[in-house]
Amino acid sequence: MTVSPLAPKFSVTLPPVRGVRLGAVEAGIKYRGRKDLSAMVFEQPAQIAGVFTRSRCASAPVDWCRKHIAGGVARAIVVNAGNANAFTGAKGVEAVETTARAAAAALSCGEEEIFLASTGVIGEPMDAAAFSGRLSELFEMAGVDGWADMAAAIMTTDTFAKLATIDVQIDGAGFTINGIAKGSGMIEPDMATMLSFIVTDAPVSSACLQAVLSARVGETYNSVTVDSDTSTSDTVLVCATGMGRDNSILPITETSDPRLVQFDMALKHVMHDLALQIVRDGEGAQKLIEVVVKGARDDQAAKVIAKSIANSPLVKTAIAGEDANWGRVVMAIGKAGEEADRDRLSIWFGDVRVAVNGERDPDYDEDEASRQVKKREVRVRVDLGLDEGSARVWTCDLTHEYIAINADYRS
Amino acid sequence: MTVSPLAPKFSVTLPPVRGVRLGAVEAGIKYRGRKDLSAMVFEQPAQIAGVFTRSRCASAPVDWCRKHIAGGVARAIVVNAGNANAFTGAKGVEAVETTARAAAAALSCGEEEIFLASTGVIGEPMDAAAFSGRLSELFEMAGVDGWADMAAAIMTTDTFAKLATIDVQIDGAGFTINGIAKGSGMIEPDMATMLSFIVTDAPVSSACLQAVLSARVGETYNSVTVDSDTSTSDTVLVCATGMGRDNSILPITETSDPRLVQFDMALKHVMHDLALQIVRDGEGAQKLIEVVVKGARDDQAAKVIAKSIANSPLVKTAIAGEDANWGRVVMAIGKAGEEADRDRLSIWFGDVRVAVNGERDPDYDEDEASRQVKKREVRVRVDLGLDEGSARVWTCDLTHEYIAINADYRS
Repeated sequence: MTVSPLAPKFSVTLPPVRGVRLGAVEAGIKYRGRKDLSAMVFEQPAQIAGVFTRSRCASAPVDWCRKHIAGGVARAIVVNAGNANAFTGAKGVEAVETTARAAAAALSCGEEEIFLASTGVIGEPMDAAAFSGRLSELFEMAGVDGWADMAAAIMTTDTFAKLATIDVQIDGAGFTINGIAKGSGMIEPDMATMLSFIVTDAPVSSACLQAVLSARVGETYNSVTVDSDTSTSDTVLVCATGMGRDNSILPITETSDPRLVQFDMALKHVMHDLALQIVRDGEGAQKLIEVVVKGARDDQAAKVIAKSIANSPLVKTAIAGEDANWGRVVMAIGKAGEEADRDRLSIWFGDVRVAVNGERDPDYDEDEASRQVKKREVRVRVDLGLDEGSARVWTCDLTHEYIAINADYRS
Repeated sequence: MTVSPLAPKFSVTLPPVRGVRLGAVEAGIKYRGRKDLSAMVFEQPAQIAGVFTRSRCASAPVDWCRKHIAGGVARAIVVNAGNANAFTGAKGVEAVETTARAAAAALSCGEEEIFLASTGVIGEPMDAAAFSGRLSELFEMAGVDGWADMAAAIMTTDTFAKLATIDVQIDGAGFTINGIAKGSGMIEPDMATMLSFIVTDAPVSSACLQAVLSARVGETYNSVTVDSDTSTSDTVLVCATGMGRDNSILPITETSDPRLVQFDMALKHVMHDLALQIVRDGEGAQKLIEVVVKGARDDQAAKVIAKSIANSPLVKTAIAGEDANWGRVVMAIGKAGEEADRDRLSIWFGDVRVAVNGERDPDYDEDEASRQVKKREVRVRVDLGLDEGSARVWTCDLTHEYIAINADYRS
């Protein structure tokens, strides 16, 4: 497996977050010779918030999490790779219950404090009994430095593990936010990404976590797309242990608390970082593409148009071929269904304006435009010239490698 | 250029349709050594109806046709390949006017009786003056047997020319409907296909032609998709010369005329035939995929779900890889946004039921399912188990060849 050429140049080592330990084991769920069962364990019940796929065929673990997220308290998050436990009917519900029961017994907590996520093949029954016996061992061996281990254990077609960290100051005290994620194909979150787990030692209530998570998911996870295919299993969970060094800080429990602003900005940074890492590991990706749309009727219209460009197979293959084919951008704007006036439209590749006032820029220079699409990171910018609506989304190019990966994944 | 493996096994020779002649010449618009400028000329003004792209960035010729289609009368249809004359601003409008003026002068008719279509690269100014001088010559050399010639001259990335014909009886007299089409990529018509021109010698008014064309476009051209990308130039024109052998037949001028039913069925057959030929020539296509959805809340919901399956890159690559990965079908149903109940869902590949009641079919046999996706023509069938809504759409698989064709088309 070749690592994506878009992978971050430097790997980051995540510091411990007080109150959480992480671990992973080889459970042989599908893969051999790699860890595929992992967990985060909280010393004390942590506050938790989540967003999930909008798929009408959500996986059994997503159903489970949705049912219990309102409780707002977590003792563990258990994740397996290799089998999505999606479209598995009554057997899928049983597998979830078996796992939650075993985890709750091992931690002497309620089953509703166990959160679950599964990623891998859809439609294969998952034999939870075969690995639920390993959970006690997993919880015991979990350590404060297990971030990289768990980030690796949740991978499927990912070519690199995705980690992010940031410090945040609240009332002059320092806290940490750590996050991990996985995802590479079947990525157009439109609610949440494949799987992402974020933990902080800041004292923030589940209601406040939910408020900032829900507010920020639109411009982060929901603004990336690899292939327009939304998974049955997309899950983002954010947890707060509240066990940071400085215990004198009063917990943040009201969304009107001005201290939430700092936390919100730091959390958004981690979410954005992880979302971009998912695109950078898009199946077969050779180029990162940023699409910026402004001048639309409103922000929502701008996002629809930006997604139409970012999901167009013809735009994505043109950029893969390093062809500055802005006519395909026009096509994608036209088909989006949102208001657009051909004669007010301007388009840029990078800083080079290629089209203006409904036709090719009079100063258009093919070589200059080509140079922009030869870069590793390509920026497509559109000004509709109508109003103030704007949006920014990220995607990757569509290459032979995407076909190779997906024409033979299950077997 | 290899001909698509899905091309019709037998080529059809179109009989003459009284009142229309067709021709093509090498005008050097983009290609060398092939005909790229073609026309249909009507001896007498023909009745005409049309449907066009829904793109908000429609091409200049589409704007022209839209403006004049209500007139309902045509003396010629002029088509060029190699340049779409789309997103060409004021120059594009000029090019259209130059062409129409030259054609009208050559035929001594009004410019509003000239219909135009262009296909090829978007955004390149088109020099109509360079070829409009050839129109007189083109109109003169046009012959009653020019169908294959024109069908070939309108091709771009097509690998075979698309032709269809049918006989229809009206009041005991025989008439003919001939049609040609082109299209291979940038195909999700959602209003009309790339380019398609149909002519009959039956005496049908433009209002009646428009009624049956509009009624049938949904289940034919609008039910095929290659890559979900809607062109700026999609155009279907249907013309009636009324010059069939039997002149005693009273023209059909009212949509309530019971004789229109026969004509409608025959026209639908030609439209369906041509629409399927476009999918069979989908860029890089190795397999024809029919997606049938039933049991949806209504027909529209069924079509949204069918299109979601047919446009999913993961479904299309799985079938390219001959992988009976029905989990991806579940994913595509889930992301469509229409009502679906996971636990009532059934899925078939060909005649093999792979999933039922929200889980893998108890009798599931991997080999049997695999045999279905190894065929040239693959049928995916979904029963949502909710209500009576149904739809049928056609697409092709997503292959390495699609990437190869599109990563280097413009240059």
